[in-house]
Amino acid sequence: MKRIASRDNAQYKTLLKICRSGRERRKSDCVLLDGMHLIEAYGQHYGLPEELLVSDSGVSRPENASYLENRAATTKVTLLADALFDDLATVEAPSGIMAIVLRPRPAHGPADDADAILLDGVQDPGNVGSILRSAAAAGFCQALLSVDCAQAWSPKTLRAAMGAHFQLDIHENCDLPGFLATYRGQSVATALAGAESLYAADLGRPLAWVFGSEGLGVRSTVIAATGVQLRIPMPGASESLNVAAAAAICLFETVRRRLASEPPLADNRP
Amino acid sequence: MKRIASRDNAQYKTLLKICRSGRERRKSDCVLLDGMHLIEAYGQHYGLPEELLVSDSGVSRPENASYLENRAATTKVTLLADALFDDLATVEAPSGIMAIVLRPRPAHGPADDADAILLDGVQDPGNVGSILRSAAAAGFCQALLSVDCAQAWSPKTLRAAMGAHFQLDIHENCDLPGFLATYRGQSVATALAGAESLYAADLGRPLAWVFGSEGLGVRSTVIAATGVQLRIPMPGASESLNVAAAAAICLFETVRRRLASEPPLADNRP
Repeated sequence: MKRIASRDNAQYKTLLKICRSGRERRKSDCVLLDGMHLIEAYGQHYGLPEELLVSDSGVSRPENASYLENRAATTKVTLLADALFDDLATVEAPSGIMAIVLRPRPAHGPADDADAILLDGVQDPGNVGSILRSAAAAGFCQALLSVDCAQAWSPKTLRAAMGAHFQLDIHENCDLPGFLATYRGQSVATALAGAESLYAADLGRPLAWVFGSEGLGVRSTVIAATGVQLRIPMPGASESLNVAAAAAICLFETVRRRLASEPPLADNRP
Repeated sequence: MKRIASRDNAQYKTLLKICRSGRERRKSDCVLLDGMHLIEAYGQHYGLPEELLVSDSGVSRPENASYLENRAATTKVTLLADALFDDLATVEAPSGIMAIVLRPRPAHGPADDADAILLDGVQDPGNVGSILRSAAAAGFCQALLSVDCAQAWSPKTLRAAMGAHFQLDIHENCDLPGFLATYRGQSVATALAGAESLYAADLGRPLAWVFGSEGLGVRSTVIAATGVQLRIPMPGASESLNVAAAAAICLFETVRRRLASEPPLADNRP
């Protein structure tokens, strides 16, 4: 197992660039998976990661050690001095293990006949990640992000999505009005000024939910291409929701409707 | 208008401590409101802030200037060199204006006959803020936080809640099982192992929603004091939601039920 102890090491310098810079990650098409949870979520869909980085103290942690023991044979493992590893890590309490993998790419372009979520300028990586996580839990299978969204594959977005990236086809830098123009299902955006209540409106299938930026909402050019604008009724003194909270409400209202229209399973799940 | 240009200024040193340290804020009982949105949300409930801090470049921004012109007569305003202000600021793109106010305190202890949200060890200030925001929008009026939650009045929590703090009675360091033991409404926690689906369960009024920590969920001692455990049905491949997303789903399922049981208003709002 190779060990790096010097910041002057050429491989370490490359790693540091990839960890610190979104542009470097895009150039190299690499994604960093920080911690066992993400590494295992990746593994369930794509198998073993190409490359693992482990810190001196991380190598002896039981959960990492058992993973390394079972997997190391076909994977390149690099050991790093703790201080060097911690400078690469993207979380406050590093788990001592990271994987570097090629960014998974959808096999096809966006499907015009399947459920979708569309993110129009959602800026905060935590919000993008939380929305991807809710979408995957709600059974949606594809996400389309406009060019000015937070990067889907940044460490912060990955951490917030907790593995949802590997259950979704994620399309970045999308032309949302172009997709909506030929979409064969119903498209719905939420807006404070929406005419109809979420709870009164019909929700079709397939369904494309459109969520907009934290400050400005969905752009007018995207609204113009969207079929329906709905509002989430808010009986409180403020009409104000975080975009990831609003998305969770809309996605799970969709789940509720679909469950209600289907006969319950024998054990009443899901 | 007093102006501070030196980091050695005694008042500046005190300000810096309050901005940087949760302990200092608690000791002084002060809260920092960063930006006009929070200052105005505070003002709607509590009137003018005691003290405003404005940066050299912030003072000339139109929205700040008009606020200062109309309000400065009864409020202490301190001007700060930009570099000094930016070191106090809690957001990445400082708006150039902050208020320092005394932390609002509820007039009474928690009410045992009103809707409530209970947060058990929710660690992330962004999640606490987002949940407070959803609760206020859903018409809930009180929040109880266990001792190990993120600080309700920290700059990060305030920013995420976008003014919801001033629409809620916020009780920190609460004994949640003690409150639940004498609560006169229905108490409900979400759990992956919950027996009944959120969408099939009765939801009473008043209602206390209990949400747990990001990693561990609601503690067993709190679960034991809670009436019902519900699960949010997740038809996707993962059963995984951010706690703020889960809270939004539960709070707005409550809104949906209550709206459905009430006759619609003439214009079909809220």
